[in-house]
Amino acid sequence: MSHRIFNFSAGPATLPEPVLRQAQAELMDWQGMGASIAEISHRSAPFIEMAAQAEADLRRLLSVPDDYAVLFLQGGATLQQALIPLNLAAPGQVADYLITGHWGQTALKQARPYVDARVVASGEANGYRGVPPRADWCLSGDAAYLHVTANETIHGVELRDRIEADVPVFADFSSSIASEPIDVSDYGLIYAGAQKNLGPSGITVVIVRRDLLNRAGQPRADILTYASHMARDSMLNTPPTFNWYLLGLCLRWMLDEGGVEAFGHRNASRAARLYAAIDGSEGFYRNEVAPAVRSRMNVPFFLRDATLDAEFLRQAGERGLMGLKGHKVVGGMRASLYNALPDAAVRALIDFMQEFAQRHG
Amino acid sequence: MSHRIFNFSAGPATLPEPVLRQAQAELMDWQGMGASIAEISHRSAPFIEMAAQAEADLRRLLSVPDDYAVLFLQGGATLQQALIPLNLAAPGQVADYLITGHWGQTALKQARPYVDARVVASGEANGYRGVPPRADWCLSGDAAYLHVTANETIHGVELRDRIEADVPVFADFSSSIASEPIDVSDYGLIYAGAQKNLGPSGITVVIVRRDLLNRAGQPRADILTYASHMARDSMLNTPPTFNWYLLGLCLRWMLDEGGVEAFGHRNASRAARLYAAIDGSEGFYRNEVAPAVRSRMNVPFFLRDATLDAEFLRQAGERGLMGLKGHKVVGGMRASLYNALPDAAVRALIDFMQEFAQRHG
Repeated sequence: MSHRIFNFSAGPATLPEPVLRQAQAELMDWQGMGASIAEISHRSAPFIEMAAQAEADLRRLLSVPDDYAVLFLQGGATLQQALIPLNLAAPGQVADYLITGHWGQTALKQARPYVDARVVASGEANGYRGVPPRADWCLSGDAAYLHVTANETIHGVELRDRIEADVPVFADFSSSIASEPIDVSDYGLIYAGAQKNLGPSGITVVIVRRDLLNRAGQPRADILTYASHMARDSMLNTPPTFNWYLLGLCLRWMLDEGGVEAFGHRNASRAARLYAAIDGSEGFYRNEVAPAVRSRMNVPFFLRDATLDAEFLRQAGERGLMGLKGHKVVGGMRASLYNALPDAAVRALIDFMQEFAQRHG
Repeated sequence: MSHRIFNFSAGPATLPEPVLRQAQAELMDWQGMGASIAEISHRSAPFIEMAAQAEADLRRLLSVPDDYAVLFLQGGATLQQALIPLNLAAPGQVADYLITGHWGQTALKQARPYVDARVVASGEANGYRGVPPRADWCLSGDAAYLHVTANETIHGVELRDRIEADVPVFADFSSSIASEPIDVSDYGLIYAGAQKNLGPSGITVVIVRRDLLNRAGQPRADILTYASHMARDSMLNTPPTFNWYLLGLCLRWMLDEGGVEAFGHRNASRAARLYAAIDGSEGFYRNEVAPAVRSRMNVPFFLRDATLDAEFLRQAGERGLMGLKGHKVVGGMRASLYNALPDAAVRALIDFMQEFAQRHG
């Protein structure tokens, strides 16, 4: 196969084709250095310049205020879920967690060895089909922070309202960062594994209000310390250089495409069309999430007749529509509509779904 | 510049040209999938197969016994230096550290928050120009482990004798793994950042005797737990997929080139020729490390007249000999002679050094 498929994978996910073409063209010889960017020192001037440009582009893309540090780290979002209590809470201090899906549970699990992690509210009882009403949240008041998951990649639940809290809000934005404009100053800390909207796996972005890094946190190694990474411009040890480079190319591509304003409009429109197709299928397809908090990035859906799942995936694959199988936690199907997914992919998916429903309905 | 330079960088370092060519050829379309390997799910069958093949190839390359687990992790060697005491020592337990250079000090620093880290012996007093004689080591006896640095990348000191100890020996092999045959069963744990002899930065190999992972260790998050990574085949969370793939290509290349037996002979011969050129320069160049423990991988050297350093680097660069500037900790020059460096590079370096000495001596 020489053409590119339409890749609805939840992450690692589709990358912008121009980014891949540039990476391919310069893989053997970056900037005329006679070496790949994967082969040069992270302490060399050209690499440092590339890294600084990526940070500047991320700041511009997300309008990151100057009093926030931007870190490029390893370990994925899950490692940040441990580093957050280690760095930003005292041993055994109360920390609040709002649980709206699988990844909120993961965050809670990573934090439990370090803090008195309390569940403010959980959507678990209703199968994570919505966000518990704000009136039902049980905030601790004296918590080190409130942790939320901005978008639940598996359950397809996205927080759409601004979170009001008396303590800093820390948010896992792995699957919705850069998908629309946000006000970074609403958050004390934002983290995101890159492998959805920002680039390849193996690099994770942390945006954190600098003054929070003055908190003593808990006994820990230097390599687990955000302030140490900040002080060394995310080069406390050898960073994932090629991943950083690919991330940088993706950031530049997003800026060239119009930035988060443009993606925000596009993503809202695409998600609305797909949900409309699901809702208009007379029950052939269904999405169970409350409409007000349906994810614009990850659209899980089920066929009324689950025995058709395999046939749906087979026929989709024949049309070059890949990565549609749902996560094993929930089953069914899932279409991830990240920034790098072409509009044509969404149109092709909707067309296919309607045809499939006609044939098998 | 369209030709490839000779890259003596200490890491990230030169990669095998056939590996880069293959990665370039299939960057847009891996295995006919119509997507880059950077874009597909780590839970997909093709990725899992690639990952398993990389593990099998690493086991074959290093003759890893079955009772050892092989992990592919993020965070670099420095993160392992924290995870080792967290996973393999009780809180405050004694742990022994042999310090033969900068990276031994780093390992000690990461461990100190967690264990009673004791320096068995240190080469610091003599500027890390040798390994303290075994008779002078002060082993604790009741230590959780003895940590050593197999090869000091900055100071150019390599342990050449088998380490005898009553406790498991844990070794940082970042800059000498796969450079010659070793007996893995001499060690309880081996770790190595990939970015020297194994592939790109952003992925780290840990080889650990499985029974050691039954140790309770210290309170910690699941993501910081080796046993959890082992139980999930290093996919406890999203792994650095493209890095794993490049690492796999490098492993295959090393096997095709004759494996560690072949590299062992080649590396010994190349290092011997370079040291002979230094020692035979009548003091124009000097290496200060005791000959018995000179590193085969990283050859630091100084010009007698340090005011010529910049000119040396400039003229070397004109010949396409790059990455020769010494680490700021020691200054001077450093030539890293990893497996992927062509023999022609070592010949070209020696020729240049001799000509430069004649012109400026």
